[in-house]
Amino acid sequence: MTYCCGILVRDGLVMMADTRTNAGLDNISTFRKLHIFRKDAERAIMIATAGNLSITQSVVNYVTEGVENPDTGEVERLMDAPTMFAAAELVGRAVRKVRDVQGKALEKAQISFETTMLLGGQVKGGRPRLFMVYSAGNFIEATHDTPYLQIGELKYGKPVLDRAVQYGTSVEDALKLALISMDSTMRSNLGVGMPVDIAVLRTDALALEVDHRIDNVDPYFHELRDRWSVALRAAHTAIPRPPYLKS
Amino acid sequence: MTYCCGILVRDGLVMMADTRTNAGLDNISTFRKLHIFRKDAERAIMIATAGNLSITQSVVNYVTEGVENPDTGEVERLMDAPTMFAAAELVGRAVRKVRDVQGKALEKAQISFETTMLLGGQVKGGRPRLFMVYSAGNFIEATHDTPYLQIGELKYGKPVLDRAVQYGTSVEDALKLALISMDSTMRSNLGVGMPVDIAVLRTDALALEVDHRIDNVDPYFHELRDRWSVALRAAHTAIPRPPYLKS
Repeated sequence: MTYCCGILVRDGLVMMADTRTNAGLDNISTFRKLHIFRKDAERAIMIATAGNLSITQSVVNYVTEGVENPDTGEVERLMDAPTMFAAAELVGRAVRKVRDVQGKALEKAQISFETTMLLGGQVKGGRPRLFMVYSAGNFIEATHDTPYLQIGELKYGKPVLDRAVQYGTSVEDALKLALISMDSTMRSNLGVGMPVDIAVLRTDALALEVDHRIDNVDPYFHELRDRWSVALRAAHTAIPRPPYLKS
Repeated sequence: MTYCCGILVRDGLVMMADTRTNAGLDNISTFRKLHIFRKDAERAIMIATAGNLSITQSVVNYVTEGVENPDTGEVERLMDAPTMFAAAELVGRAVRKVRDVQGKALEKAQISFETTMLLGGQVKGGRPRLFMVYSAGNFIEATHDTPYLQIGELKYGKPVLDRAVQYGTSVEDALKLALISMDSTMRSNLGVGMPVDIAVLRTDALALEVDHRIDNVDPYFHELRDRWSVALRAAHTAIPRPPYLKS
């Protein structure tokens, strides 16, 4: 399993991914799923991946080394994509290329071709954008109405984002909420686990402010988890007594 | 879809179920899924159901009208079950009886035989107990370590229970948390919807304190939902700034 989320607010973009992969409960490994493509003052692009690791790693390799654009014949790389939309098209093309190369063999082995990816970032001249790319290489984009996107084991961590994340949320709060969302997920699904990679890009900074790995002993993450649990208890205690009760 | 949960705390038992059933997004109905068997001063037993409605309704009918016990040849009804354990065995037997009667035909029609049920309550002479009965009629029981059980679309509403429900939680707080858990679920899955049935049984009361249907205009439910959202925002705002951020 995997859990990744991206939150795009007015002041910036937060991306987060766990690192656990598993082939059964008895075969657990740690693999980076948050991939960063950066050239300061020009671009910062992040890809978070979910699904079959052989597929997602191939996609990341293709967008790094280059994929041919059938319209122009040119080989395009993520580090050269002129816009974030072009970057999303390139990732989609890479997904389809992996399917072309490996799809039939995977099908024969009864391994479903499944992957979803979050692509977020900013290229000079454009605004920060956040996309979700599907297995067919098609994609959607986060908007002001729904400024966050999730992939993988998304249900446990959705309610907190749902209630608290808005386009006007600060980058600080977006990062805290992403971490709370990850913590809620890790508590309930052993397939999602530490360490957790986070990246933060402020709007128009064109350089990552945070590119950090949170591990099991990270004191801030422990504090956040404890404070959140205490606050939730205080929150429900402060809600008035249900009027349906008599005694 | 469906979402039901039961919370068993020291002072009592809370049971809750939504009422939405659907065969596709374009075929939505309201059916009661929280069934109550009560005789004041003697017993109060509740069954919350998830899964194929034709199966769950048949099970409820069997335990109401009686199922033969193959060991004794006697026909047993939920209203006569001497203990909650015997009640759980009876529900399990009813599930297997439905499978015996309808299972093959359902299989031919490629309809999977899937149902889970929560069975909670107290019978005079025993303590309040809470069980989850599976499709094979086997069952597990909630314990002090894990005093709540969920069925149906359970992931959205699990984190809040996970962080806040303990065996020592008050009945009032357990009811609030169940409602918050339901609200989180209804926000994210259109297959779970109003009205919501709730029942509350205090330990040793042997009579339901609450047997109530919450509808769309219930003022307390709206207040709870609003206060919870406000409290969550306050809670994450109060958490210190992540040290990973620079600016």
